[in-house]
Amino acid sequence: MKQNFPFSKDIKRAFQNDPPGQWMTVVPTGCIRLNSGYPQPVLVPSIEIKEAVARLIDEEQDLPLHYIGSPRIPELKKFIQQRMQKREVVLSEEELLVTSGACQAIDLISRILLDDEAVVAIEAPTYMEALEVFGNYTEHFMDVPIDANGLDTDRFEEMLADKEAKGETLPRLLYTIPTFQNPTGTTMTLERRKKVLELAERYDFLVLEDDAYGELAFGEQARLLKAMDPGNRVLYVGSLSKVVAPGMRIGWVAGAEELVTAMDWFKKDLHHPFAQATMASYLEGLDFDSHLQELQDAYQRKSSVMVAALEKFLPKSVSWYTPSGGYFVWVQVPGVDTVQMLPEALAAGVAYVPGRYFFLNQEEGREFLRLSFSYAEEEQIVKGIELLGQVIGRTVPQENN
Amino acid sequence: MKQNFPFSKDIKRAFQNDPPGQWMTVVPTGCIRLNSGYPQPVLVPSIEIKEAVARLIDEEQDLPLHYIGSPRIPELKKFIQQRMQKREVVLSEEELLVTSGACQAIDLISRILLDDEAVVAIEAPTYMEALEVFGNYTEHFMDVPIDANGLDTDRFEEMLADKEAKGETLPRLLYTIPTFQNPTGTTMTLERRKKVLELAERYDFLVLEDDAYGELAFGEQARLLKAMDPGNRVLYVGSLSKVVAPGMRIGWVAGAEELVTAMDWFKKDLHHPFAQATMASYLEGLDFDSHLQELQDAYQRKSSVMVAALEKFLPKSVSWYTPSGGYFVWVQVPGVDTVQMLPEALAAGVAYVPGRYFFLNQEEGREFLRLSFSYAEEEQIVKGIELLGQVIGRTVPQENN
Repeated sequence: MKQNFPFSKDIKRAFQNDPPGQWMTVVPTGCIRLNSGYPQPVLVPSIEIKEAVARLIDEEQDLPLHYIGSPRIPELKKFIQQRMQKREVVLSEEELLVTSGACQAIDLISRILLDDEAVVAIEAPTYMEALEVFGNYTEHFMDVPIDANGLDTDRFEEMLADKEAKGETLPRLLYTIPTFQNPTGTTMTLERRKKVLELAERYDFLVLEDDAYGELAFGEQARLLKAMDPGNRVLYVGSLSKVVAPGMRIGWVAGAEELVTAMDWFKKDLHHPFAQATMASYLEGLDFDSHLQELQDAYQRKSSVMVAALEKFLPKSVSWYTPSGGYFVWVQVPGVDTVQMLPEALAAGVAYVPGRYFFLNQEEGREFLRLSFSYAEEEQIVKGIELLGQVIGRTVPQENN
Repeated sequence: MKQNFPFSKDIKRAFQNDPPGQWMTVVPTGCIRLNSGYPQPVLVPSIEIKEAVARLIDEEQDLPLHYIGSPRIPELKKFIQQRMQKREVVLSEEELLVTSGACQAIDLISRILLDDEAVVAIEAPTYMEALEVFGNYTEHFMDVPIDANGLDTDRFEEMLADKEAKGETLPRLLYTIPTFQNPTGTTMTLERRKKVLELAERYDFLVLEDDAYGELAFGEQARLLKAMDPGNRVLYVGSLSKVVAPGMRIGWVAGAEELVTAMDWFKKDLHHPFAQATMASYLEGLDFDSHLQELQDAYQRKSSVMVAALEKFLPKSVSWYTPSGGYFVWVQVPGVDTVQMLPEALAAGVAYVPGRYFFLNQEEGREFLRLSFSYAEEEQIVKGIELLGQVIGRTVPQENN
């Protein structure tokens, strides 16, 4: 029965968009998953988490199974404070909220800052789930191009000046993934980071710094926007999804106390005591820096394997950014529609995410695809790229081949 | 630094309310917790959950630690479908969304239905956290009195007719806890249930049926509103918090497919694979009906112990509803302000929740308090009520004593 439900204004607006998850591909069994932005199974500490639960229950019995009460929950917050301090960000308890993954943090930030009059500045391309979240609140965006050095701040400055000159609404929020960006894998230079903060002051907007991949650096770690944020304008979003396990749903947001307090009001899934206490129990036995080093080494090897395979198997016309951390390689295949090519790739045995889904203006992503070196094993990566090379070879227009 | 942050309209409205959690009391160590709506520690299956995690990881390794992939997640949904079927509600997969506890379900329902123009009909008194959630979306309420037979539907009908006659906005949603209501412990009669559904049709509103306590019946189970819902107007909210463990944050919402789909769009904490798979693993080894029977027996015993102690230790002027299920006893202490009496009760060694926090118009709750027999052990319950009787004896105006 189709009824005329009395939907809220929010959902009426959201219904105008495509349903979420359009970018998700049903990947046939046996297909090599270069689409999955997941950690590699052997790098997920399953046994250690099993042991962490056993220790937790042995020591605390029912405590972590109530709404509140586990002494390990404050410990998780302290762990996050300490990690942030290592990255030059000193946070009070009131400036930090633990969330159900980075995605909930992005939603809560939207919840307190955005409404149907708000403009959000985003990178083009950007993380598709963040686009979906923002689209639940507003239809006004400003998409700023990204290149090998991250967000193009000169272009951003021109766009802002232009908007101001025309008397148009300026953005309330910039959403950026400055380090090992999803999907491009690129990192914003220090100079551009400073420029972003300068523009935030000048044009009075807040900055959502999504740092889901920031700790997975193959070399030196980039300086956080939040670490050089004189106006307290940066809302930093972190996550243990990429460095421990996404299924635990542990993320956080750090920013001005007034903003964090407001987010806490709207966090109506409460505080997931069992997941948080389990994570705290897992972490307490761990040398986290060594753990990170292992992950960094593993992903660096996998990244090198993927890039070497791309060089070996892909036509000369194809190009990509060589990542210095994170999970992804962003590939341009001139003259090819990567949505149209996907069924053939899946049939050949390799999966990727078409570039289109990472753009507000989807047509801009037509020739792009995102590969992930995180999930598949090294020999699978090589095989997957070889298969992709064959599919591209059959698809690329002759003059480009 | 105090800044002028560009808050959304939502949060600006929410800031006009009291901060959430005002009803939470800091209970001194050693104080008997008749305030806590928690399951009793010995009734929380800690060991079984530890074993469930061990089995889960042994059998699935990293699968439940990714975003998706655990075969047990669909099993949890099937379990809920089967439980609902036992209660005469047949649900397709698309009519059921697993949430992070009932609280997130209530928030998602509000999210898709409420905005600043919406009116919500609520019971007076009602669950204080639901009041907080609704207050994040609208300031327009219609509070309908409740008595020993649940929501006063005659009064509700008059109020609706009156609103209609005056051309005032009618409610979009009725929030009700028909069975073992929080805080009163009362249950809506079958006749009134039918009336609620009839009014929903006539006045075109939806019904949020919060059934957090429904399975904890000391006798026969009441028929669900959702089980006699010809117009598909009921959004049923269930939870495993009271019958397994609140800290696992497993709840659900069941209703018209179009509404459930809309809620899924806004569920931006994703789907908590580890918690859901752990719950499924715990449930698969369990005779759930026997488990429920044990809980029902235990809580019935504890309820009887509390009621007997109330009869023995409380002044004659004090009255209460004798519960037939759930967690709570709602007590009226004529002539006493229960907020003012609380510090003395805490000093004496017993905690309760003042009635005020369960009312939109807090003054109506002045003489009431909520006791919970769920958390404390039986002898603690007796001791707690004895202490409460002494405190009330010292506080009640002489003519009432």
